Parts: sequence; structure tokens; C-alpha cells
Amino acid sequence: MQNLGQLIQTGDWKGEKHVPVIHIPQDIKVGESFELKVSIGDEIKHPNELEHHIKWIKLYYFKEDGKFPVEIASFDFVSHGEAGVITEPVGSVNVKLNASGFIYALAYCNIHGLWENKAEIKFN
Amino acid sequence: MQNLGQLIQTGDWKGEKHVPVIHIPQDIKVGESFELKVSIGDEIKHPNELEHHIKWIKLYYFKEDGKFPVEIASFDFVSHGEAGVITEPVGSVNVKLNASGFIYALAYCNIHGLWENKAEIKFN
Amino acid sequence: MQNLGQLIQTGDWKGEKHVPVIHIPQDIKVGESFELKVSIGDEIKHPNELEHHIKWIKLYYFKEDGKFPVEIASFDFVSHGEAGVITEPVGSVNVKLNASGFIYALAYCNIHGLWENKAEIKFN
Amino acid sequence: MQNLGQLIQTGDWKGEKHVPVIHIPQDIKVGESFELKVSIGDEIKHPNELEHHIKWIKLYYFKEDGKFPVEIASFDFVSHGEAGVITEPVGSVNVKLNASGFIYALAYCNIHGLWENKAEIKFN
Ligand SMILES: [Fe+3]
Ligand SMILES: [Fe+3]
Ligand SMILES: [Fe+3]
Ligand SMILES: [Fe+3]
Repeated sequence: MQNLGQLIQTGDWKGEKHVPVIHIPQDIKVGESFELKVSIGDEIKHPNELEHHIKWIKLYYFKEDGKFPVEIASFDFVSHGEAGVITEPVGSVNVKLNASGFIYALAYCNIHGLWENKAEIKFN
Repeated sequence: MQNLGQLIQTGDWKGEKHVPVIHIPQDIKVGESFELKVSIGDEIKHPNELEHHIKWIKLYYFKEDGKFPVEIASFDFVSHGEAGVITEPVGSVNVKLNASGFIYALAYCNIHGLWENKAEIKFN
Repeated sequence: MQNLGQLIQTGDWKGEKHVPVIHIPQDIKVGESFELKVSIGDEIKHPNELEHHIKWIKLYYFKEDGKFPVEIASFDFVSHGEAGVITEPVGSVNVKLNASGFIYALAYCNIHGLWENKAEIKFN
Repeated sequence: MQNLGQLIQTGDWKGEKHVPVIHIPQDIKVGESFELKVSIGDEIKHPNELEHHIKWIKLYYFKEDGKFPVEIASFDFVSHGEAGVITEPVGSVNVKLNASGFIYALAYCNIHGLWENKAEIKFN
């Protein structure tokens, strides 16, 4: 049987609706706070109902010359119709970093399992 | 001994740095997605370090004529210095509602406990 | 409108199926690890299906002469039928305490909102 | 750069203190509730302090002939010294399954990143 790491799926978010899209502002600076956003369904909407939805997205940072990913934040999308509330799989936090590296997003669909994406983050 | 509900603190966020601030856009419409944001420290910064930080904020919705609060989303601010990452207590999600009501925010500081705030949400 | 703290419900778990039951072993000792367990539905089962279930339970500790509740652990019950998995609202962790006080449990039902209970913890 | 899945580490829990140990009772039956437990440090203790600790463990189920892992539960170990509380990385829930398969555990150390383990679950 495969390891869990091997079961994490990925792909091009323009064609695969589960892949999280990482949004990094253009003009970020070392040690200055910026808004780090992640979303699912930018191109093709993912279902968002009780029977089938994205439950959570986590964000990680892997520092250049680092050894391990560090968890930045975790978003739980809790409501899928209760009292008419629909929470969409879009989350953002503010974060400060002091070096270039990579941002990873890990997402979980209650039907289609685990999905990831990554984006380079480069300070000048 | 008091109940936990009685131990949840509140106040004016302009003077008390733990109180979450709920940001609701002006021009929201019934059934249309909007960005619901919550932040701590808009006026007076809360410490954000390993020894003392905001761990999470949850958002709830109480529908007019509703009976119970419904959890919308939950933000975990995970990193407080690991690999130089500082996650700030600011989170947002996208949400659709179909009636007016109240938004509640509940936050947890690892030293000063539970804090809440509320904001009315009114569709025309 | 009431505060969120005032919306947290409680009652006798023998008659009200949402109230979490806190299980503390008899023979606990200061500074020694013990299993702290919380469960919902010990007497009257709560529904456990996609449409209606307990989403999470959190545990807090309020030290005698303390000022604020400290979060011990949080259990998310994620699966409610996916691939046939039914996760029941029963969770436990191991914990060490160095003083008497109170344990609080806070639980969330996706239909009936927030519920709490408390139990005294006394070291000799 | 590697994918996040490739950064999830594993090993023999008897020699590597980060690897979660999955405890499945001997006499489980299809459709009957059993206690599913996971722990870290059964053989070699992992540090458990503010600067270095296990933040969470998640449990997944992969049904035989299934296609995707399904998240069962998630344990957050929140307190690492606040008010003297030490939460240990040991968690359990009750679960019902209706087919054999695999249980996965995924854990996060704030210093050493993501770790996994798996165990077969076989009904007769
Ligand atoms: Fe899906
Ligand atoms: Fe504080
Ligand atoms: Fe209920
Ligand atoms: Fe470690």
C-alpha cells in the first residue's frame, strides 16, 4: 500500500477543480506583513454542499535552505447549507516572512481526498 | 464556578486588544458571495510570539428569527516564529447568506483566554 | 442581541443529548499524566449523520485561583458517512496538570449550536 | 522543488520519535464502534514544550478498493505549559467502519514538519 504522501494529488488548477491556487502579492518585502490567500475553484467551481465540499485548506512555508515545512495557518470551512450559510473555499491570512522559499497549500475534499499545490516566494 | 459562556470576555476593540473586529463589506447582497474578514489588533497590537499569541478565531452566524449560532469558518494561526514565520491574527473567507442576522467572532489567546464580538448584518 | 457566551447552552447530560460528559479518572496525581475523555450521547444518542452531527469538542482547564480558561485540546469529528466511516463524538487525550481546578468541555452541533459542561478536578 | 507529499516523513516509530503509532483493537467487527487511538513517543519521548512540540495528528481511512483517503478525525494538542497544562500527543476517537482497509496517521511537529504512518485494518 502507498504512503499517505503518495496519495496527495496535484495538477493544473485551470483544469482540475480541486487544486488550491496560492495568491501571493507582487510587491512583498522581507519582514513586512502581506496577505497570503488560497482558493479552490478559481477556474472550475468545485461543488459546495453537504454531500460534497472542501473541508479545509492548510498553508505551509518551506524556507530556502530549510529542512522541513512549517505550517502557517489552517482554514476550516465549516458551514455547507446550515441556516442557509455557504462558506466558500477561499481563505486568507496576514503573514511575515524573513527569507525566500516556497508556499504549499494542502486541501481536503470529503469525497476526493487530499490535494496540494506550491508557489515560489521570492524576495529581492 | 461560572460556566464557560460566562468566562468569554468582550469589550471595545479600540481599547481592548483582544477583541476581534468583524469587517463586513458595505454592498453585500442576499445570496451573493462576499468577503467576511476578522482581525485582532486593528487599534492596539496584540503580542504575536511563541509565549503569547492569538491561536484561533471562529466565525458564527445567527440568522434573524434563528435559534442557534451556525459556525461559518475557523482560522488557526499556527506559526509564531518557527523558521521566521509570523502569522498575524487576521483571517477572511468568502460566504453567502440568505437572510439578515448577526455575525459573531470568538477568539482564543493562549494567555488571556476567550474573547468575542458581534456585528449586525443587514440586507435591504 | 445576546452575546455568544449567552448562547452557549447547557443542561443535564442524562436528559439532554448535546451536553458533553467529562470523564476524569479517580486516581489522578499532580504532575502525572492521565487520560482526559469527553463524550456526547452517553445516555441518549445524538444523531450522527451528514445532515446532523457533532462537529467538534474542545477541552479547557481553569486553574484554581486562575484568571482565564486554557485550551487543552480540540477534537474534530470529520467523517459522517464518507466511505462508510462514522466518527462518534468521543475523544480523549493525555494531560498533566499541576493544580486543582475545573475542566470545561465545549461542543458544536451543526444544527443545535454550542453546548458546554464542566467538572471539578481535585488533587489531594 | 519537491511536492508537499514528498516532504512527509516516515520511519520506524521504535527508532524515530516523530512517527505516530496507530493502535487498533484486536477484536473489531464490521459496523461496530471501536476505539481508534494514535500516539507519538511510545518508545522514545518527543519534546513537549512551547518551543518544540507535536501540534496535531489527523487520522485517515483508505477503504479496500477505495480511491481516496477519508479523514476520520483530527486532534489538536493546544496547551504546552500555559497554566501548567501539558497536553501529550495521544488521542483517540470512536469509529465505525464497514470494510477492511488502511488507517493512516499524519502528524505535525512545529520544528520537524510532517510525519506519517499506516496500519492495515482487517475484518474477518
Ligand atoms: Fe471533490
Ligand atoms: Fe493576550
Ligand atoms: Fe443536534
Ligand atoms: Fe520534533
